[in-house]
Order: sequence, then structure tokens, then C-alpha cells
Amino acid sequence: MIFSEPIVNSLTWVTSLSSVLHFPLLATTNEAEYAPIVLTGVLLSLVVIYLASKIGGELSRMIDLPPVLGELVAGVIVGASALHLVVFPDSGAIASDSLIMTILQSINDISADAATSIFQSQSEVISVLAELGVIVLLFEIGLESDLRELTKVGYQATIVACVGVAVPFGVGTTGLIYFFHAPAIPAIFAGAALTATSIGITSKVLSEIGQLKSREGQIIVGAAVIDDILGIIVLAVVASLAKTGEIDILNVIYLIVSATIFLIGSILLSKFFNFGFVAVTDKLKTRGNIIIPAFAFAFFMAFLGNAIHLEAILGAFAAGLVLDETDKRNELDDLVKPVADILVPIFFITVGAKVDIGVLNPVVPENREGLIIATFLIVVAILGKIVTGWSVFGLPQINRVAIGVGMIPRGEVGLVFAAIGSASGALDKALQAAIIIMVILTTFLAPPLLRFAFKLSPESQKPIEQVDSVG
Amino acid sequence: MIFSEPIVNSLTWVTSLSSVLHFPLLATTNEAEYAPIVLTGVLLSLVVIYLASKIGGELSRMIDLPPVLGELVAGVIVGASALHLVVFPDSGAIASDSLIMTILQSINDISADAATSIFQSQSEVISVLAELGVIVLLFEIGLESDLRELTKVGYQATIVACVGVAVPFGVGTTGLIYFFHAPAIPAIFAGAALTATSIGITSKVLSEIGQLKSREGQIIVGAAVIDDILGIIVLAVVASLAKTGEIDILNVIYLIVSATIFLIGSILLSKFFNFGFVAVTDKLKTRGNIIIPAFAFAFFMAFLGNAIHLEAILGAFAAGLVLDETDKRNELDDLVKPVADILVPIFFITVGAKVDIGVLNPVVPENREGLIIATFLIVVAILGKIVTGWSVFGLPQINRVAIGVGMIPRGEVGLVFAAIGSASGALDKALQAAIIIMVILTTFLAPPLLRFAFKLSPESQKPIEQVDSVG
Repeated sequence: MIFSEPIVNSLTWVTSLSSVLHFPLLATTNEAEYAPIVLTGVLLSLVVIYLASKIGGELSRMIDLPPVLGELVAGVIVGASALHLVVFPDSGAIASDSLIMTILQSINDISADAATSIFQSQSEVISVLAELGVIVLLFEIGLESDLRELTKVGYQATIVACVGVAVPFGVGTTGLIYFFHAPAIPAIFAGAALTATSIGITSKVLSEIGQLKSREGQIIVGAAVIDDILGIIVLAVVASLAKTGEIDILNVIYLIVSATIFLIGSILLSKFFNFGFVAVTDKLKTRGNIIIPAFAFAFFMAFLGNAIHLEAILGAFAAGLVLDETDKRNELDDLVKPVADILVPIFFITVGAKVDIGVLNPVVPENREGLIIATFLIVVAILGKIVTGWSVFGLPQINRVAIGVGMIPRGEVGLVFAAIGSASGALDKALQAAIIIMVILTTFLAPPLLRFAFKLSPESQKPIEQVDSVG
Repeated sequence: MIFSEPIVNSLTWVTSLSSVLHFPLLATTNEAEYAPIVLTGVLLSLVVIYLASKIGGELSRMIDLPPVLGELVAGVIVGASALHLVVFPDSGAIASDSLIMTILQSINDISADAATSIFQSQSEVISVLAELGVIVLLFEIGLESDLRELTKVGYQATIVACVGVAVPFGVGTTGLIYFFHAPAIPAIFAGAALTATSIGITSKVLSEIGQLKSREGQIIVGAAVIDDILGIIVLAVVASLAKTGEIDILNVIYLIVSATIFLIGSILLSKFFNFGFVAVTDKLKTRGNIIIPAFAFAFFMAFLGNAIHLEAILGAFAAGLVLDETDKRNELDDLVKPVADILVPIFFITVGAKVDIGVLNPVVPENREGLIIATFLIVVAILGKIVTGWSVFGLPQINRVAIGVGMIPRGEVGLVFAAIGSASGALDKALQAAIIIMVILTTFLAPPLLRFAFKLSPESQKPIEQVDSVG
């Protein structure tokens, strides 16, 4: 949109007229000069990201796997590991590593310095778009988590969720510290990344095998929702610990309390928010009367989450939980969907693209330590959830294996952990790659394992409400 | 999302493990360190932008003016002219001028250097979001311009459109050169900004006074659509001329031909595109099956527009015209709307915010030349469209004043001209402010003038199809 060369004629005039102005007119000529090329780069990156996400998602669906898995793998392929179309300076890439920069250089006449600056700017914009994507993703997850449904599954689900968060977190963190001599912060981060079950993937697989309404299915989904909330609190606390770089018990308690108060407080205040939100949207008559207040609220809560040194996504998630209680929720769901559709893939592709899967290439002998750590994390991720089945009490006929296996897939929230951890520097490339592979493997293994687990004790598959399921 | 301080513990471990990696792990520590603060700034800016756009839009609607006018004025208020909430380095502002930076500094511990870097990054992200906003706006205008409807109003509308582009452009440009001794490029840019009538505002006012289906109304709307297409071609040509900084007749011819071929070519190929688009979206089964291919196409066309040294918005507009012809158009309209709702206001507020209305403050004597130029542009903008009524032939009973007055409001495309011109440096602050005020005034004056003009000759207000309008 802006010029690649200064315009001699007009500048003369501009300068003569600009003597009356307060500021030098062309203080940031270089930045402004590159702006149209930055835009070209952003547009091309978005086209690549959209194509990759759709191709990956559809191929994944064809072989009966969750689309998000395909998007993630597509991200790995277009990113630093293979095609180098979507690469980022914060994972060590320079302008000449980026295939998109090469294309831009073939179209425009760009010097080496200019290329570095354009690459930085373009990557920064895509990174922020990805962060807005994960904010919208958590806002949408919040909108979809029905708090009233949770009360039905009672404390069986709560106990499963707590065990399913505590065991992988405890075993993962202590294992990394004692067996692999990792310092506390990365160990805690990696342990925390093992906690959150993916609601989306779990409930999709359950519904495919007709077990969503079974006793096991209801406990699994209920636990997955609670587990997400716990996971986001854990993430907010861990990310904040990482900011100060030291673990002070008082600080940990303060963070847990403030994150919990922030989330529970928003939920308790939701009646008040809802009243205001519905009143405002009813008064507005111009375009965007629902979606603009909703996003203003979500972004404000995300800002607040960041401002009180927790996480933006905690705020967005709380905003979603709150607005889910309004009368406008169905309209809102329909409006948020297209926005999520175009922003969320940027996050998934970016997460995949930032991983250098090569650091876990088994052929290279130096990678052995990273590979052993990755294997350890994957084993803890799977076993740490399987044991949760034995925390269910008072239901002797229950299929404990199925419940444990149902909690295995990690998905979105695990990816959020990997993204935040690696962007912060708390996770190095090997740990980041290990977490991504953990997410891919658990998501990949869950559907066949779950089908198998439900075959173990067919007599336990009776739905809780017999009457409903007969009809 | 990322740390404000390096983490000593984890860095030690990261560094020891990173010896096996190809790249230095923390090559861009500074950039990465500031990233969470940049995100906080972007979120806060978006909250301010959304609140301003809704308050401005609603207030404007209450006093019967188009919402876009209120959004623009709200942008002026939150921007460089008054509140300094949304300000940009390319209009000469520094970090300490930005109220949002002041808020960020009160939350975080930021050094002066860091503040400059964060301010630059945050402004760059908001600028790119605004540019994506105008791309989505033109994509949507393209989707809404029904090419088949145009054939009904025939060449009366075409002649009105051509005269309405040629007269303000010719008089504006030559006037600036001969009376005000402006160099050719800024004069051409300012002249071109006077060309495009706002379809949205015109058709809304016409429908409010019940004249949308009248003979005059149909000619006005038809001419406004053609006028938009001509305006975008003019913009692409003028912006490209400004890039090289000189006016070479061969180059002008080449640009006009290439812009026309690009637009007409896309329209002629639309049958082929549609076939492909419908086939692809029918095959896709995952979320975003329509919207992702649509945006991938729109962004690719925008990229192509930029890549062949025309404008991104020309490509987005062509993409909209093409996809408007598909069977999916209604579904697509519904999906693009929420995305436009959250991106387009960023553009309007940014355009207003970048204007320093103070440069036209009549109290300051140095502003006299700027004010005279602004007045000249506004007079040309109004008279240059009023004369178009006399270009209608063969219809002696027609209300020529109403047709001319109906073409007066400029709106969105005029703002696009102002934004691209000032970002490029072709327009200085005074000319940019003059164009914004021209857009505000023409839009402000059109509704009352149009109501008055239609009262001049009531007998001419018969609809073309008498039968339809009776029912």
C-alpha cells in the first residue's frame, strides 16, 4: 500500500508545507517504506497457513483422526522442520531461511537489511495473529463449556479430573528433576503440559463409538471440562512463576489464589455481566451489535489476565464462561465461529511450524537425551491418565480402563502449553518438540484404544438414564 | 505470554541442552521479551477501537447519519487529534505520546528503549490489522456488488459514473496544480480521492426517503457501483504512479490496461473460479469449509494485486465480485459479515486516528493555505458530482439535481484513498486532513440535500416499473 521509493517531487512539496507541523514528517521512512512488502508477506503467509490447515485437517478426517491433528502435522510440514514456508526469528531462523521471503525478494527489489526488517515485522504480525487465535480459541472453549451440565456428573468427574491433573503433573515434574536433572521451572512447565485432556477430541471419539451418554462417557466429558479449567489455572500459575524465575511458596499460593479468584469471581459475577451485556446489545442498532461488545469484553478480560501477570487466555476463557450464560449465547456462538475459523488455524499451524522436529531425529546420536525425555513424557502422559479410572469409587461395575483411556488425548490446551512455554524460553527446542509429539501421539492413540477399552466389559455400557437412551 | 525478565535457572539448562541445536536459542531475546507487552498493548488498543467504533456509530445513527461517519469521528477523537489513545509512529508520534503506552508502563517495568520498540511493534500490528480490515471491506463490497443488476440500469448510469469520476478528478487535479502549485503526484492523488461515491451511504439514504426504486434512485445506485470500480482502478494506477514518483505516459497506459485486465479478467474467469470453488467447498467436511477457501482466495488475490504492483484491495474487490456469482453467495455473506464486523472498524478508527485535525485549526494563521486547499477540494467534490445530473440524456422529465446530489457522499473508498495516500507520503498532513473532512462533510450534507432535491420536481419521482411499486 505504501511506496518502495521516496517520491522526490511530492516530498519537496510535503517538506515545504510540513514546516508548519509539529513533527518531522518522515521520521520512520524505513519502516513505512517496507510496509507494503510486510503486508504482501503477511497475505502470502496467511494463504499458505489456510491451505495447509485445510489440507491437513481434511486428510486427517479422511483417516478418522481429529482435524486438529492434521493441522498440527501440516504446520510441522510447512514450518521449520521441512518446507520453511512459515518460519520465525524467535526459533532462530533468518530472512534467507524463509521461502516466503525468497518469493518476496523475487517480486521486489529488497536489500539484505530490508529483508531482515521485513522478515521480523511479518513474523511478529503472524505471531500476534496466532496469539489472537488462541485467545479466540479459549473464548470459544469457554462459550462451549456449559457450567450447568457439570453439576449433573457430580464429584466422580471432579475426582477423576483432579487425579488426572495431579498424577501426570507430579510424576512428570519430579521425574524430570530427579532422573534428568532438569531445573525446576522447565520441569514444572513440562509436567503442567501433561495435565489438560482435550474436551473436543474426547467427546468426538465418544460420540463416534456411541458412548457419549454412557456412565463412563459422562464421567469422562465432565472430568475433561474440569480438567481444562484446572489446566488453565495451572498454566497461569506456571507461566507467572517462569516470569519471576524462582519458586517462592508465598508467590505460588498468591498465584493459585488470584487465578482461582479471577476465574471463580468472573463466574459468580456472570449474572451481573449478563444483565449488562444483554442490555447493551439490545440497545445497539448498528452492525456488529452483538459481536463487537462480545469481543471487546473478551479482549478486555484477556488484557486484564495479562495485566495482573496471569495469562491472556485465562481472561478469554473466563469471558467465554460468562457469556455462555447469556440469552444471546446461540446467536453469539454462530457469530464467533467464522472468526474462530479464520484465526484459530493460524495458531495451530504456527505451533506446528515453530517446532523443529529434527531435534528428535533418532539417527543423530546427540539427540539421544532429548528422545529419552520425550519417551518418558509420553509414557507419563498415557499412564498418568489411565490410573484415573481407579479413583472412581462406589461404582463397582464401571469400566475403569475406558475412563482412564478416555482422558488420554491432550489436543488444544497441551499445544497452548507448548506455545507459551517455548515462547517464554522455559521450554527448549527438545522439550517443546517432545510435548508436541506427546500431543500428536496421545491424540492419535486415543480413538483405537478407546474402542478397544469399551470392548473389555460390555455389560458396563448401560447409560445412566436408561429411559432416555431406549427412545 | 512471554517473560519480561530472562529466567536465570531455565536459561542455564536451555543453554546447556541447546549446544546440540543448529541455531542460537535466544538470538532475538529483546524482541521475545517484549512480546507479551506487545500483545497486552494490541489487546488494549482493540478494546479502545471497538468501544470507540460502537459509541461513534450508535451516536451517529441516533441523529440519522450513517454509522461509518460516527466511527470516523470517534477515530479522530481517540487518535492524534484529541485523546492520544490510538496513535502511530508513522504520523510522527513517539511512545510517550501514546496513552496506551503510558498505561502499559504503569503495569509493567519498561525502559525508554523498550517502550519505543514495544510502541513500534504494537502500532505495526494494529496497522496491518487495519489493512486486513480494508481488504475484507473491499472483499465484502465486491460480494455485495451484483454485476447482473448493473446491466438493468444501462448506459445512463455508466455515463453518470464516468462524468462523476472525470469532472472532480480533472478539476481537482488541475486546480491544485495551477492555483496552488502542487506537484503532480499529490495533486493527482487528491484529485483521485474525489472520485468514488459511497454505494452504502447513498443507497441507505435513498431507501430511507423511499426513492431507491425511482428512476433517479436506480441511476444513482448503478452509477455508484460503476464509480467504485472506476475509483479502485484509478487508485491502483495513481498509487502505482506514486511508487515510481514520475508520470510516464507509457506507464500510465500500462497501469490502466493491467488494472482493467486484472479486474475484467477475474470477472470473465469467474465461471471457472466458481466451478472450482463450489467443487472444493462441497468436498470439504471439516469446520470452516466455506470461509477458509473464500479467505484463502481473497488473500491470494490481494497478494496478487500487491505483487503485480497494483493494490491489495483491487485483488480483494475482484475476489468479492467473482465469489458473488457462486451458489454459495448467501452462506458466504453470512460468514464474512462477523469477520468484517471485527476487522473493518479497526480500519475506520485507524483512518480517523491518524488524522491530525489540528493542522486545519482556523485559529492558527499558518494553517490558512491548508484551509484554502481543503475548501477548494470540498467545493470541487460537491459541484463535480452535481453536474453529473446534466449528463443524463433522452429523459427530459428526470430530476437532474437529485441525481447529482445523490452522487455526493464519498465514504469508504474516499477513506481508502486518504489512508493509502498518506501512508505512502504522497499526501501530507494538511491534504490528508482535507480529504477526511471532505468525506465527513459530503456524507453529512448528502441526506438533507437529497431530501431537498427530491422535493424540487415531485412529478419526476415515478418509479420505472409502475406496477411493482404499487404493490
